[in-house]
Amino acid sequence: MSPALLPRTGIGTDVHAFDTDPARELWVGGLHWPGETGLAGHSDGDVAAHAAADALFSASGLGDLGSNFGISEPEWAGARGTALLAEAARRVRAAGFEIGNVAVQVIGNRPRLGPRRAEAQATLSEAAGAVVTLTATTTDGLGLTGRGEGLAALATALVVPVPPPGGPSDEPGAAG
Amino acid sequence: MSPALLPRTGIGTDVHAFDTDPARELWVGGLHWPGETGLAGHSDGDVAAHAAADALFSASGLGDLGSNFGISEPEWAGARGTALLAEAARRVRAAGFEIGNVAVQVIGNRPRLGPRRAEAQATLSEAAGAVVTLTATTTDGLGLTGRGEGLAALATALVVPVPPPGGPSDEPGAAG
Amino acid sequence: MSPALLPRTGIGTDVHAFDTDPARELWVGGLHWPGETGLAGHSDGDVAAHAAADALFSASGLGDLGSNFGISEPEWAGARGTALLAEAARRVRAAGFEIGNVAVQVIGNRPRLGPRRAEAQATLSEAAGAVVTLTATTTDGLGLTGRGEGLAALATALVVPVPPPGGPSDEPGAAG
Ligand SMILES: [Zn+2]
Ligand SMILES: [Zn+2]
Ligand SMILES: [Zn+2]
Repeated sequence: MSPALLPRTGIGTDVHAFDTDPARELWVGGLHWPGETGLAGHSDGDVAAHAAADALFSASGLGDLGSNFGISEPEWAGARGTALLAEAARRVRAAGFEIGNVAVQVIGNRPRLGPRRAEAQATLSEAAGAVVTLTATTTDGLGLTGRGEGLAALATALVVPVPPPGGPSDEPGAAG
Repeated sequence: MSPALLPRTGIGTDVHAFDTDPARELWVGGLHWPGETGLAGHSDGDVAAHAAADALFSASGLGDLGSNFGISEPEWAGARGTALLAEAARRVRAAGFEIGNVAVQVIGNRPRLGPRRAEAQATLSEAAGAVVTLTATTTDGLGLTGRGEGLAALATALVVPVPPPGGPSDEPGAAG
Repeated sequence: MSPALLPRTGIGTDVHAFDTDPARELWVGGLHWPGETGLAGHSDGDVAAHAAADALFSASGLGDLGSNFGISEPEWAGARGTALLAEAARRVRAAGFEIGNVAVQVIGNRPRLGPRRAEAQATLSEAAGAVVTLTATTTDGLGLTGRGEGLAALATALVVPVPPPGGPSDEPGAAG
């Protein structure tokens, strides 16, 4: 395999504080969670979608959420997490990468993701146009998530540089 | 390489609090650490084995530790971390994936893993049936691990979908 | 692809506390940040370079920063983070691995990495002799980084075992 065509790995973390306004809606994993307190901030605070998008940017060297959707592009300020993830995936592909997969782990006491995992995975995967898996864990009452101050997510992504059309290829037999 | 046969990356985190009972045994990296205070919980609290298993589930989209070994399968409630890791690896392979490797980093003040790294890596690798590496770091006295409240682990895993027998293959020469 | 030649993934975390001495220099991502308070410790505290080096060791099973540059090799005690990263990359290659890429995310309130991302990425990539991407995020005021107690970094790396010269190869056509 040519070094240039090795897969590339990326990493993304995101943390948002729970909002003090009990009427704030909670959005995690591209889903609305009725009856749960939302996360603070200008965005919808979807830590899973944000970490996934950041892991894609990280793997492909296209900057991060802040440089892509920050003050230079104010039209993204209030965008849904899945909209950011879809646009991140579009930019990664436009830069010449195929997306292998994204794996996201949500860390926190609530919501309980298990019962809606399949629905969340389908929503995130549709946004990214690639397999996105979603897992969850807690931290035994410790740290910012264990104390219920906020919700965190960790993501890793794998992307592969696409050979330019007509250029060198590492497909078996192509060099023959 | 066919997109379907790209490797997939996964991520797993685990945190357990140190037990208040000084007689509790400490198990980390599949090893017993005599003289060290153990981690609280129903399981043995082996953050390294748990994070490794969760990273494997994350990479292959098979849910997580909670959905695999939680209340729906009470027979796993008190299982050793390495038993959970071995069963996770078995389920990942049964679902059609080859396991590339798992890398685990333990974060905390104690135990000091370095002197027993080779033994822990061999124990975890035997459980997973694949290369598992184990590293360790501290957090400069900060956060839940720095204050000695608990022990954390972070893991990443790489798995590869296995082509179905008799189906398409990306083996060199197979298409010729 | 032969199992032995699958890429391997690795993970690395690093945390350092901000120094109480306001004259201490800040080094992050291989760069000096004038006017910013530095990180405490014997090293330069470059969490980005340290996490990158640890992810490379993690992927290749060569131990960790502590076992490679700790008390057994005191000549590295005060080394610049980029010197440690360069030496880590050298050891990983000497052990028979090609380095695919390293992705690092810095987590904390300051410095603001965005304006100097390209410079930091170039510096880290030159040290590693491979693509190193650098991203940044904050934690919404929560946790050790949100409270401004310290700076953290998370890294993932991908390495590939190099087939021994004259030995078995998975290069297309080699077996034909
Ligand atoms: Zn966010
Ligand atoms: Zn656990
Ligand atoms: Zn360090």
